[in-house]
Amino acid sequence: MADTPVNTPVVTIPAQEASSLRASDPCVFVILGASGDLTKRLLLPALYNLAQQKRLPENFAILGYALADYDEEGFRQKLAGALHEFSCDGGRPELVEWIRQRSYFINSDFENPEGLATLKSRLAEIDKKYGAGGNALFYLATIPRFFLELPQRLAALGLLRQDNGCWRRLIIEKPFGRDRATARELNLGLAKILGEDQIYRIDHYLGKETVQNILAFRFANGIFEPIWNRRYIDNVQITVAEAVGVELRAAYYERFGALRDMVPNHVFQLVELTAMEPPISFEANAVRNEQMKILEALQWIEPENISECIVRGQYTRANDGSAVGYREEPGVKPDSNTETYVALELHLDNWRWAGVPFYVRTGKRLTRRDTEITIRFRRAPMQLFRETDISRLSPNALTLQIQPAEGVQLTFDAKVPGPEMQLGHVAMHFAYADYFGDVCRTGYETLLYDCMLGDATLFRRADMVETAWNAVEPAVEYFDAHPGEGLVTYPAFSAGPKEADHMLNRAGRNWHAIG
Amino acid sequence: MADTPVNTPVVTIPAQEASSLRASDPCVFVILGASGDLTKRLLLPALYNLAQQKRLPENFAILGYALADYDEEGFRQKLAGALHEFSCDGGRPELVEWIRQRSYFINSDFENPEGLATLKSRLAEIDKKYGAGGNALFYLATIPRFFLELPQRLAALGLLRQDNGCWRRLIIEKPFGRDRATARELNLGLAKILGEDQIYRIDHYLGKETVQNILAFRFANGIFEPIWNRRYIDNVQITVAEAVGVELRAAYYERFGALRDMVPNHVFQLVELTAMEPPISFEANAVRNEQMKILEALQWIEPENISECIVRGQYTRANDGSAVGYREEPGVKPDSNTETYVALELHLDNWRWAGVPFYVRTGKRLTRRDTEITIRFRRAPMQLFRETDISRLSPNALTLQIQPAEGVQLTFDAKVPGPEMQLGHVAMHFAYADYFGDVCRTGYETLLYDCMLGDATLFRRADMVETAWNAVEPAVEYFDAHPGEGLVTYPAFSAGPKEADHMLNRAGRNWHAIG
Repeated sequence: MADTPVNTPVVTIPAQEASSLRASDPCVFVILGASGDLTKRLLLPALYNLAQQKRLPENFAILGYALADYDEEGFRQKLAGALHEFSCDGGRPELVEWIRQRSYFINSDFENPEGLATLKSRLAEIDKKYGAGGNALFYLATIPRFFLELPQRLAALGLLRQDNGCWRRLIIEKPFGRDRATARELNLGLAKILGEDQIYRIDHYLGKETVQNILAFRFANGIFEPIWNRRYIDNVQITVAEAVGVELRAAYYERFGALRDMVPNHVFQLVELTAMEPPISFEANAVRNEQMKILEALQWIEPENISECIVRGQYTRANDGSAVGYREEPGVKPDSNTETYVALELHLDNWRWAGVPFYVRTGKRLTRRDTEITIRFRRAPMQLFRETDISRLSPNALTLQIQPAEGVQLTFDAKVPGPEMQLGHVAMHFAYADYFGDVCRTGYETLLYDCMLGDATLFRRADMVETAWNAVEPAVEYFDAHPGEGLVTYPAFSAGPKEADHMLNRAGRNWHAIG
Repeated sequence: MADTPVNTPVVTIPAQEASSLRASDPCVFVILGASGDLTKRLLLPALYNLAQQKRLPENFAILGYALADYDEEGFRQKLAGALHEFSCDGGRPELVEWIRQRSYFINSDFENPEGLATLKSRLAEIDKKYGAGGNALFYLATIPRFFLELPQRLAALGLLRQDNGCWRRLIIEKPFGRDRATARELNLGLAKILGEDQIYRIDHYLGKETVQNILAFRFANGIFEPIWNRRYIDNVQITVAEAVGVELRAAYYERFGALRDMVPNHVFQLVELTAMEPPISFEANAVRNEQMKILEALQWIEPENISECIVRGQYTRANDGSAVGYREEPGVKPDSNTETYVALELHLDNWRWAGVPFYVRTGKRLTRRDTEITIRFRRAPMQLFRETDISRLSPNALTLQIQPAEGVQLTFDAKVPGPEMQLGHVAMHFAYADYFGDVCRTGYETLLYDCMLGDATLFRRADMVETAWNAVEPAVEYFDAHPGEGLVTYPAFSAGPKEADHMLNRAGRNWHAIG
């Protein structure tokens, strides 16, 4: 393993605009799996953005670890190249240099005792050189099979011990198990070697910014909470639509499918944020306790209800031939029964939401990329307007648009100009970009920053991960046992299977249009 | 008096786009005071627009009456010229001709028995020729002193009798008296010669379109009514701001001032529409009964509260010299104590609004033309956001913009992008023009059309006119007795006197910006 002497001079960031924002704690940021796409496209640009905002302290260094065909200098070159390619401004030289010079690399696989021993000794050296005070963050940018094994190896080397007031934290990304049993197994295994407060489970799909936008919208404004309940809301719709297909992830996706891949994590997080009670504070556990209550209130979908409450779909070739069907994708079995789309009718057993269906859907190869929460309100209690056909009166709807662009839309009825009282459906719009500009960010900045400050608000707690599986566990078990049952199809780039429309139509409702 | 034979051939409007809208009742539209600006700029263009929309029947004719220096042919020429100048499309020849050929004129003053006798005989002729079935609408486009005298003369000639199923209606425009006593005198006088259902009191400032927009917004949508009360609303602000000065109306304005001229009519109408309970139907008296309840609920401003609850202002020369002060205007006394601005704090004694101040203001020579209703909601009940200075959290506000462009705006707080939880004030917008286009109209079309159909929803009932005076009567009496007391000044083209700001600031509130 090649390395660079740790006494390389430290480059200081030139004074920028005055900022009252505090830098994160001193620490060494250890990336396990530093040769992959995640590091190149997201982690390094996110750290670059944090450095630019002066949120990284001088007492900061990066230590990459991966089996690669380059040495430490090669890693630094790749790092500079990645910042050049993936940062918003092409990488300002003095800032790239600031990061480059405090970056180190160990070329080894995760099972090599020599490599891990080197990790321990170099971490100690770098910590001392930069005055990181023993703080270290281990980012597992690895395949899921190392999520337990690798922390166990780190623990065996004593690398996860928080001695003398320092901290040692671990970041992992989903999947957190493939079902309740494996999620529990992972949690229990990690709990033996780490405190829960050392484990940061990232759900990067929903950045902290978005989560906070939703919480701010709901709880900083006096006018929405009074009508945010079963008395005024008819139904809630959550859409997480992707236009992409399975891409190169068939090996993973064939084992998971849309239900496991998206519902107990991303989709449920949106359900929690929409449905949760106001937390008593914005502190991590206060927020997560409220989210947890929603997960606990979710009705389990029992096998006898599956045909009514779940629609599983798989995309077929696009009508215009512009995309192949799922079964034709590389790495997918030609008789695969993996669903690429799932729609569910969920119910919450609590005071606020009793009787209000939460319709959720997620899928690949849908019309367009679109993540949104739509609240459909009940109609006005009476129809004053004799000349208006009641069936043409639409209920009010509030849409929190999350991807691709964040915004809020409120639809309502207004009078169409003219002597008759005719109503038309119109909307008020708000786009974050119109007010705050397009901020360049990867979505990881605040997650990494919060982890380095010890703020776990946006990370999933062990009990949340396990409880989230409960509601869908009977369904995933059922589909494991009856893989082809009820699986329907939809053409690539459509709005999903018509059976999902029927699910709402039966109740006199319809989906909000995608996008 | 010159006239044109009534057997001129009738021009038929060419078939236009199919329309399911029904034409008004057959009638003769009599304009008393047909030589003035109102006729030229508003009434004739409004009738032209109605004709274009096929809302006038073939059994329709116009009979003008005024003391003028032209004859019937001159009137027709003026009419064609007015349509050319003031209609949106310059006056389509076949449509102008349709109106021109069915227009007649009597050149006489209102006190000339011969002229009025001619009116009676020609009305009968025209009615017969056009098959108007005896229906006639008398539009009093005159100075207020004729509001009672002229109808009395018409009544003496039997012109207001509704024989054999025909109707006879009278349209008058404010001022409906100068105070409660004179308003009552006018109402009682008219009641002796006309049924209340024959009297159409126009408040043209607020067109039917706007009134219906407000009612539709409030009652066709399920999400606003639940929060439209004292529990969620902190205060209501109504602004009727004009940029123009007194113009050529000094003789009238010196006698009335801003309080009499605007408050018990236009401003109160906005208060009623904002505050009223949902009517049991959209029928004229159902709506007006609810408006009436608001007028009855208005607290009278007693003399001892005047200094706290009323600010009277008079404009002075603009800071940049671009406008003279009110006392320098032609026709205004150099020591005039007439107010050109008034702001009031009003209270409603009812269940929905107890404790919620209605701040209203109206004035000339303000920053810009702006009529709007702003609902300021209470703040969210708790402040979750430790890093947000509470004083920077703004309350939600809903603004119904009425003039110059109609629209709706909802302001709320959203998270400012970045790692900290900072909130910024943002808005959702809706503009009628974006959805429905800019419709060319004078504001009179639907009022005239409704009158010809007998729909009195948008017109003021006698009891409303009298009751409206109640709340301000103690104040107008007090100011009549103490004309200069408390009168403050504001520079032309400013937002009004600073004393009006203080009135709100004392309660920790502030005005919504004009425009």
